[in-house]
Amino acid sequence: MANNLLIVHGGGPTAVINASLYGAIMEAKKHPELGHIYCARNGTGGLMKEELIEMENVPQDQLDLLLQTPGSAIGTSRDALEQAEYEKIVEVLKKKEIRYVLMNGGNGTMDTCGKLYKACTAAGVEIGVMGIPKTMDNDIAITDHAPGFGSAALYMAQSTAELCADVKGLAIHVVVLEASGRNAGWITASSALAADQGGDGPDLIYLPERPFDEDQFVADVEKLLQKKKGIVVVASEGLHDKDGKPIVEPIFKVGRATYYGDVGTHLAGVVIRRLGYKARGEKPGLLGRCSIYLQSKVDRDEAQMAGEIACREVLKGTTGKMVAFKRISNEPYKAEPFLVDIEEVMLFERKMPDEFINAEGNGVTEAFKEWCRPLLGEPIRKMVNFN
Amino acid sequence: MANNLLIVHGGGPTAVINASLYGAIMEAKKHPELGHIYCARNGTGGLMKEELIEMENVPQDQLDLLLQTPGSAIGTSRDALEQAEYEKIVEVLKKKEIRYVLMNGGNGTMDTCGKLYKACTAAGVEIGVMGIPKTMDNDIAITDHAPGFGSAALYMAQSTAELCADVKGLAIHVVVLEASGRNAGWITASSALAADQGGDGPDLIYLPERPFDEDQFVADVEKLLQKKKGIVVVASEGLHDKDGKPIVEPIFKVGRATYYGDVGTHLAGVVIRRLGYKARGEKPGLLGRCSIYLQSKVDRDEAQMAGEIACREVLKGTTGKMVAFKRISNEPYKAEPFLVDIEEVMLFERKMPDEFINAEGNGVTEAFKEWCRPLLGEPIRKMVNFN
Repeated sequence: MANNLLIVHGGGPTAVINASLYGAIMEAKKHPELGHIYCARNGTGGLMKEELIEMENVPQDQLDLLLQTPGSAIGTSRDALEQAEYEKIVEVLKKKEIRYVLMNGGNGTMDTCGKLYKACTAAGVEIGVMGIPKTMDNDIAITDHAPGFGSAALYMAQSTAELCADVKGLAIHVVVLEASGRNAGWITASSALAADQGGDGPDLIYLPERPFDEDQFVADVEKLLQKKKGIVVVASEGLHDKDGKPIVEPIFKVGRATYYGDVGTHLAGVVIRRLGYKARGEKPGLLGRCSIYLQSKVDRDEAQMAGEIACREVLKGTTGKMVAFKRISNEPYKAEPFLVDIEEVMLFERKMPDEFINAEGNGVTEAFKEWCRPLLGEPIRKMVNFN
Repeated sequence: MANNLLIVHGGGPTAVINASLYGAIMEAKKHPELGHIYCARNGTGGLMKEELIEMENVPQDQLDLLLQTPGSAIGTSRDALEQAEYEKIVEVLKKKEIRYVLMNGGNGTMDTCGKLYKACTAAGVEIGVMGIPKTMDNDIAITDHAPGFGSAALYMAQSTAELCADVKGLAIHVVVLEASGRNAGWITASSALAADQGGDGPDLIYLPERPFDEDQFVADVEKLLQKKKGIVVVASEGLHDKDGKPIVEPIFKVGRATYYGDVGTHLAGVVIRRLGYKARGEKPGLLGRCSIYLQSKVDRDEAQMAGEIACREVLKGTTGKMVAFKRISNEPYKAEPFLVDIEEVMLFERKMPDEFINAEGNGVTEAFKEWCRPLLGEPIRKMVNFN
């Protein structure tokens, strides 16, 4: 069997998923014993149709652009696979003489990765399978954080700082900024770092880890508007009430994901209707995971490193593991990569721990900020206000 | 009467309104004959309450931060003034011994500026009044473009390029990006530059200069989805039907402005309902006018220059004029400042000319791109795709 390597993307892209791809390819190119460096076109769906992209002869200047390209440059998918499909994939791997598989994705993809690892073992084929973590939502278990989150956090913190400056200069009473992360509040929480350079931070932060109480929200807003002309609220797209019911209606479903109405606009409507104040909701949505200007350098470097390590390890014979990061210190920032058994991260959703959420459930703690700050890769831009 | 200068902000802020403020203050500091350099706190409302900020002794390192601070660092307002209020302002100017007034804003503020100029003339006081143009929407008359637009255009073009890369890597059928500019399509149109570096641009662009026909939109989308898995639509927040009725409902009114529901989400809903395709709407909203990472350097330099010129001219005795820009050439980019009578720009809304809009009404022409491109200040980032 020839020594071919395959890289597969799964789930939503981030600002640095291509940096992991770059790291894996650059590491693979150091190994002359390897045959083809394949990528699956559009994730597992393309893989099953044997749609492979040969990367070993791509010019270096094209590869270098991966570091500043958001989205997935090889295509990704959200397919949840059936058991028969894993067997089908093993057949394709054998046919294409693929000895090493790197799967880059979030906890859904790590589930696929773990099941593929098991399918390979069950089929008695010698195929190494390694996971590369990736999620803007930061909800993969065990790892301190996942590549993709730092950039999403920088986007959210910087955007919130700018929005706060805007609202301070021309009050519109209430602006609700909707943040990505339906079940885990990591991105929503990172907006708190907007205040880092002495500027205003968001006034209220509502995380999906706490049940959302509309009456309490209205009371929170009303109280703040007695002191300030304009306030900024950051709210998770996944807010739900105490019974677990989303505060907005579902719009459509695709694969594992259900799409809902906009929380920001909904909450702005609540303010207008119940308090009579001017309000508007903003939803950058997908823009928050594909901004290259706000790509975190720390995040990009770690994404690249995760790709390199996964590739190096699988070539050494390691299999059934995911690359993870362990926090050594916040200041100076130090995180060390290590390997975790893939079974430990399959489909588990890691949420914000209690010590990162304030007692009122409408903000974060200093401990969260200290944890999150270094992942931004650079400080929020300093601003000035004479008003 | 002492020689005091006053700077007033009006209307919504931009990414470079503080750069004009910086230019005006730096120019003013060169003139020892000047007394105080005042700023009105929160626009004309603060001015009438005699809320003035003294800027002449602000440390230089604080002033320098104005160049990277979005929003209005002195506060702005949306007040539409009554005649009696202009007389009140003239009284305040006399009392505070203000000899020179610079008003920075869009066509609403230029209306205020012109009326203040007339009120000063009518009162027989020797007060010079000059306008500094500012609008993300680019809808001020006579001037080729206004400070604030270039940055909004860079934000829209780069964000669209990133969104297109994201959607190409993981198709979600239809993503509708809502763009600012209710009556004029300049910002919406600038999304077309997303394709500049060989990447995908938006597939459809709907401008408020053309009546929106929902059936035609559905047909446009359906046709494209036969060829592509995921498409990106950019739509103005102010789309209206052939009878001039906005395609979304009004939510609330403030001053001259009415706020409406989200066009992006609305159109995504149309796609879901009428075609059964997955769709979502994104609305960066205010983020599009306050991004410092996507502040255009050309825009910032021109904003600073407009502030400097207005200040220099008013000190020379010029009054009742606005600083404007005349395009000399696109490549290399050259624009020259000149002065225009304030009467010519009062409340006029400049829309996209026909030669910038394609025949189908769902895109822009090459002529528009050539005109818009240099205002971004830098090219869209190059990306790569292997899919």
